[in-house]
Amino acid sequence: MTESHTATSDYVLNQTMLRIKDPEPSLRFYQDVMGMTLYQKVDFPEMSFSLYFLGYPSNHEGNTIPTDPNARCHFTFQQSALLELTHNWGTETDPDFPGHHNGNEAPRGFGHIGVSVPDVAAACARFESLGVTFVKKPDEGTMKDLAFIQDPDGYWIEILNADSITQLIQEHGATSHE
Amino acid sequence: MTESHTATSDYVLNQTMLRIKDPEPSLRFYQDVMGMTLYQKVDFPEMSFSLYFLGYPSNHEGNTIPTDPNARCHFTFQQSALLELTHNWGTETDPDFPGHHNGNEAPRGFGHIGVSVPDVAAACARFESLGVTFVKKPDEGTMKDLAFIQDPDGYWIEILNADSITQLIQEHGATSHE
Repeated sequence: MTESHTATSDYVLNQTMLRIKDPEPSLRFYQDVMGMTLYQKVDFPEMSFSLYFLGYPSNHEGNTIPTDPNARCHFTFQQSALLELTHNWGTETDPDFPGHHNGNEAPRGFGHIGVSVPDVAAACARFESLGVTFVKKPDEGTMKDLAFIQDPDGYWIEILNADSITQLIQEHGATSHE
Repeated sequence: MTESHTATSDYVLNQTMLRIKDPEPSLRFYQDVMGMTLYQKVDFPEMSFSLYFLGYPSNHEGNTIPTDPNARCHFTFQQSALLELTHNWGTETDPDFPGHHNGNEAPRGFGHIGVSVPDVAAACARFESLGVTFVKKPDEGTMKDLAFIQDPDGYWIEILNADSITQLIQEHGATSHE
């Protein structure tokens, strides 16, 4: 074990932060469509913004979220794999709000979050029935059984399956681990 | 348990994808400075890009990464909390490459990834000694014991601690869970 790994051995990749225009459709999408749980909402009235932390409790070892507010807060910030949605108050009713940039056209940067699912076709059939916007359906393009959908702000979410992507990589790529 | 939660009960928030200019400094940063492990590299020669999947094995229940390539690939795409770095070949030597957009000035969108650490001051002292660029040091601003650093492409990484942030939220915000 190197020095860097000793120093960083208890690090946790806790969050990915995306700004949202309106918490109402975003929470409905991430909770009802994506099936995430709201771990924590934090309002900062003096600075006029709110944060929403969502994730899948089944992704964690200790998957029972405490109900005591302080214990719940502490728990949230020790978990891995949370989505943090930032709402700057007022954007949801501002007619001049330009919307958020999803990073996939210039200027590019962030690309997407990705959710691994047991069955891409079944997941996407359900998303279609719920009116979700697709960037790429599973049967389109050369990468079959892999989809991209959009959240209410237009951010991309890759929908993938571990078996399918392992096969896709065998067909299209060369893997190595270093 | 609602319909949506039955349908999504095995979903995993697998990845957050960021485009990078040059894998050499990025891998050095995420491995040596942030202490992440490279789970999987995938090259797509026909499409001239490579993907790098990094994370913290200690964040997962089954934290032994298989060495067999297929088993390792399958394992990677079932884990939560991975960072996916996308390298489009050639950007690292292209004098006209404009760099990547970190989402924190217009047009805004993605904000940051966040790493929960046992001791923000110790982590940041180590980052300083390693020459890491800070957006906000832990003792700056009203939010003490919370820092933002930048990766080689300029993406922001929040450095937080669960105890400190729970206290900060008590001081500055009002929490609720719904």
